Order: sequence, then C-alpha cells, then structure tokens
Amino acid sequence: MAAALDVLGIGNAIVDVLARADDAFLARHKAAKGSMNLIDAARADSLYRDMGPGVECSGGSAANTIAGLASLGAKAGYVGKVRDDQLGQVFAHDIRALGVAFTTPPAKSGPSTARCLVHVTPDGQRTMHTYLGACVELGPDDVDPDQVAQAQVTYLEGYLWDPPRAKEAFRKAIRAAKAAGRKTSLSLSDGFCVDRYRREFLELANGEIDILFANEAEILSLFEAKSFDEALQEARKLPGIVALTRSEKGSVVVNAKGDEVHVVDAAPIKQLIDTTGAGDLYAAGFLFGFTRGRALAECARLGGLCAGAIIQQMGARPQVALREALQGQLG
Amino acid sequence: MAAALDVLGIGNAIVDVLARADDAFLARHKAAKGSMNLIDAARADSLYRDMGPGVECSGGSAANTIAGLASLGAKAGYVGKVRDDQLGQVFAHDIRALGVAFTTPPAKSGPSTARCLVHVTPDGQRTMHTYLGACVELGPDDVDPDQVAQAQVTYLEGYLWDPPRAKEAFRKAIRAAKAAGRKTSLSLSDGFCVDRYRREFLELANGEIDILFANEAEILSLFEAKSFDEALQEARKLPGIVALTRSEKGSVVVNAKGDEVHVVDAAPIKQLIDTTGAGDLYAAGFLFGFTRGRALAECARLGGLCAGAIIQQMGARPQVALREALQGQLG
Repeated sequence: MAAALDVLGIGNAIVDVLARADDAFLARHKAAKGSMNLIDAARADSLYRDMGPGVECSGGSAANTIAGLASLGAKAGYVGKVRDDQLGQVFAHDIRALGVAFTTPPAKSGPSTARCLVHVTPDGQRTMHTYLGACVELGPDDVDPDQVAQAQVTYLEGYLWDPPRAKEAFRKAIRAAKAAGRKTSLSLSDGFCVDRYRREFLELANGEIDILFANEAEILSLFEAKSFDEALQEARKLPGIVALTRSEKGSVVVNAKGDEVHVVDAAPIKQLIDTTGAGDLYAAGFLFGFTRGRALAECARLGGLCAGAIIQQMGARPQVALREALQGQLG
Repeated sequence: MAAALDVLGIGNAIVDVLARADDAFLARHKAAKGSMNLIDAARADSLYRDMGPGVECSGGSAANTIAGLASLGAKAGYVGKVRDDQLGQVFAHDIRALGVAFTTPPAKSGPSTARCLVHVTPDGQRTMHTYLGACVELGPDDVDPDQVAQAQVTYLEGYLWDPPRAKEAFRKAIRAAKAAGRKTSLSLSDGFCVDRYRREFLELANGEIDILFANEAEILSLFEAKSFDEALQEARKLPGIVALTRSEKGSVVVNAKGDEVHVVDAAPIKQLIDTTGAGDLYAAGFLFGFTRGRALAECARLGGLCAGAIIQQMGARPQVALREALQGQLG
C-alpha cells in the first residue's frame, strides 16, 4: 500500500525559550555544556528569572525533525501532547502551518505546555533545561494504529522514556508499524538519556528499530565504549541501519545487512550560530532521502546538509523553507 | 535633582509573532505593506491560522526603545499592561532581564496579553496586525508621578491613543514630567495612527512635547504635507526638537531654539533582514545620547547606529547587548 505519510514522528511537544548565556551562567547553575537536564516547575521558574531576554520558538526533538521534513517537502505527521494554553497554541500553530498532520488533543487540565530553556553560549553550543509539563499526559490512547500504518517510517525520540506513560505510546506505535510492515526509527536523544534507559534502548536497537540515530556521546554511552571506533564496531553488530553523527567530523552510517559502512563529510558552513537542532535536522534530511529510496550515503549527505543549515541560525526550526534554501542540493 | 532613570517609557505592552510572508499574503489580507493595522480577537485568530510558523519575541514600540536603551547601558523604566498569562510572563521577563524597572501590575481578568502579528516580506519590510488585548486596561492609575519625576525623559508612543484610557495615562505622565521640570518625548508611531489623532498630536507637538520622533510618512501625515521639504519647514516651527527618520536616507534633526538643522547619514549595513523596530531603536540611540548631554547631531548618529543594528536581525529587540555590539562606536 502506498504510504499517506512519509514519516510520523512521536515525541515530547515543547516550546523552546532561547537566550544567549555565558559560561559563568552554566557554572552558576551547575549545567554541563551541551547537556539536556530535566527540571521541575519551580526550577524552571528560578532559572527563567536568571536568564536574559529570550525568543520563543516551537521545539521538541522529534517535532523539529518532522518540521524539517515538512520544510523539505515531505508528507509528515506528529503526535505529542501540549496543554490548551498560549504556548500550546503556538506549538500547534507552528507545526500545522508547515502542513504537518497534528491531531493529538491538548490536555485540558494539569501542567502547562512543556518548555525547554535553551542557553546558547558564544561558542554556538546549546545547553538545555526541560520542564516536561503537559508531556507527562501523553499515553497510548494518543497513538492511532491506523495512522502509524499509513506512514513509511515511524520516528521516535529517546526522550519519550522520561515522562511516565509515553513509553507505552512508544511501544504501541512500534507494534502498529511492525504489523503494517512499516519501518521504525529511533533517535537516542542525549547521552544522559541513554544512561537512564540503556538496557531498554539496547533491546530496542537489537530487535525493533530499523534506523537508529545517535551522536558520539550517545553511542559511547549505549555501548559503554571508550572510543568511537569501539562503539562503531558494536553498532555494526546491530540488525538495522545506524547513523552516527559526529558534529564537524560528519557522519558514519552502517548497515549490517549488506555490510555497508559510509563515512560522509559534514556540509561546509559559513558561521556557526547555534547548534540547537543539529541532530534533529540531520535525521530530517536522512529520512527525507530514505523515504525517497536514496542510497544510504546519499541519505547521510542530505542529513549533513540540513544539519549545516540549522546551525547557521538561532533555533531548531528552519526560518526559511529548506526546500527553497537547499534548492539544487537535494539531488 | 539627579535622575534615577534616564528614560521612562510608556506604551502598549505587546508580544510580537514574527513570520515570513510573501506579497501574495499581504494582498490576500488587504494589508498595505509597512502599515500597522488594529484587529480584533477573531481577526487575530484567522490571520494567525493563515500565517507560517512564527517566532515569539517581546515587542511594543516604546518597550523596544526602552529595551534598546537598557541594552546600551542606560537606566530605564517601562509602564505597560499585560495580562497574567504566559505571553504576559514572557513580556515581563524579557524587559526585566535587561534591568528595566517594570512594575505595572498585570491585568487579572479580561483580554489576553496583546499580540502583534508581524509579516516580514522578502524585501525586509514588515507589515503588522495588532490585537491590543490587555493594553485596553492601561489607565492613569498605572502612572506613578513620583517615578515620572525621577526620569530625565518620559517617552510616549502615539499608539497609546488607540486603547480607550491610555491617553489619560499619557496626559497624566506629561503633567508629572512638566511639574518636575523633566523632558517629554513622543513617537508618532505610524502614519495611519497620525491620521486617526492628527489634531491631538499637533496640539501636543506645539506645546507639551520636547522631543518628537517621526518618520517620513508620519510627518507628512501630521502636517498633511505633499513633500518632505514642506513637512520639514513646518517641523521647524515647532517649539521642541524634532527628529525625522528617512530609512536609508538617514535622519534630519531640527531644533527651533538655536535654529539648528542637522542632516545625518544612515549607518552602513551589510544586509537588510527585517525593518521591524528601526524607528524604535533610532529613538533608543538618540535618547541614549540626549540623556548623556550629547549634541543633537551626535544623538542622530547614535540613533542611526542602533537602527542599523536592529534591521540586520529578525525582530525589534537586540539579540546581543548593543553596548558590546556597538563598542567603540558609541562615542
């Protein structure tokens, strides 16, 4: 059956608050540069009070990937939970404005829409503090097996293991995709996230996931490896495709079936502004190619192209349509 | 008495929603390019639904000027009305994070925090649709005469004549400033706004305002003049200082006392991104110089410098501290 959607993403629906910060700010708040830290409402309030003026922009890892796919011209859907508040309306508007099918009903009570406080340091690195808010309400009822069956790829973020019931939604989506003969994909999200759920993620990677995305910190954490090469050798034993991103060193894609290993350079950039969304947009470019039947090395090139575009602007959502911005480079 | 504040701004407290738009969007919504249009809640909802993905950023004309002043290192205060909702919290956070004294209590009921839908076309021009929301609750009780008396300059935006009771706050502030021997300043805000309140603005300019800011469309409208030169000759008859901004042609500053006329070139820019906030930041630079006792031509140069900085980024609030960005150029 032809797929109505190229990719259906499921993730934590979050609005980002981006602000410039210096290293002293990170030290004062004991935040490791580049990390994602979960915080409660009280901590979110106190951190926000100490932050500089911000810009609000829809975010969420899988949502950024889906927005990137839509911006490239793909047919995409998204499942995630906001509250029926102002920031929830902003999130829903921004993803629908890209043509993404987003029908998850907002929570009518409980915590407010999730916020991620993103501190961008002068070196372009981002450090995040996430208040999950309404994301804790996401559950299996929010996953429609028919919609999953209509998507070529169902894409899940590792962060879904943080809220209490989202992993049930995650597992339900995987079952529905498998039953329909569709592909599943997982991003490992963050090294500390992998630390929290290593056993489960290893099980998923060894059986249920067709395309795994990870950066260097995440794959090292997954295999508790000491070097990238050691982790790469472990990744080659996984049954599916593994795309490993290495920032300015580009990416390495392996596929046990066919014994493929591709090492692809990063796309050249003019100026690094903000790394927020680099991994998310790599996945967008990669899946754009994958759902169009491109070879893996070409998928990796497209991933690098989109990652390169997003790190030359503030925020993780493309400020201009990627289809136009990357015209002539999409192959 | 030494002033505790350099400038106290009073205006409509608004959160901007910035999105790229094309000329077809403006035509479809019958919006004149570069204009500010007042809309009701229903129109705001329908326009928002038709807009692309946005970025939320604190705005409001006088608030942008005050943010610019604080970013330059001035001591500034602000009076404006938000609701106690998420966007109201965003507005209050962003201005306080700059060190601005902002103590106006938020409305606890009634319309939500004001939003301005800003459509940025590929030529860098911005066209605005404003839903005034909680701004209609601003009244004279929100103006503290003691705070006004402590500011060297009280700065008011013409847009304050749109909500029903804000003009009473405006007049109360002028009286308090005059009584304390302080200066008053007014931005005419928008050509259509001048059309709505020409008689009142002429009266203010002829008696109560020490420093008047206007762009070309606004000063032509004020005097119902046919050419800039005709308007300029009228402006020279006003009792106070008049700063006229002319986009890429720079600015002209006149002062009847002393028979001064200064024609100052625009600051060179690399790339025009978004003109949102150009006039607001000109006023910031000008008042920064003025409150430091600089000559009028130097105030105009500083105004042009800040306007030039803001049009090379998205949005009307400086993304980096102007004091650092313009280091060595502030004289």
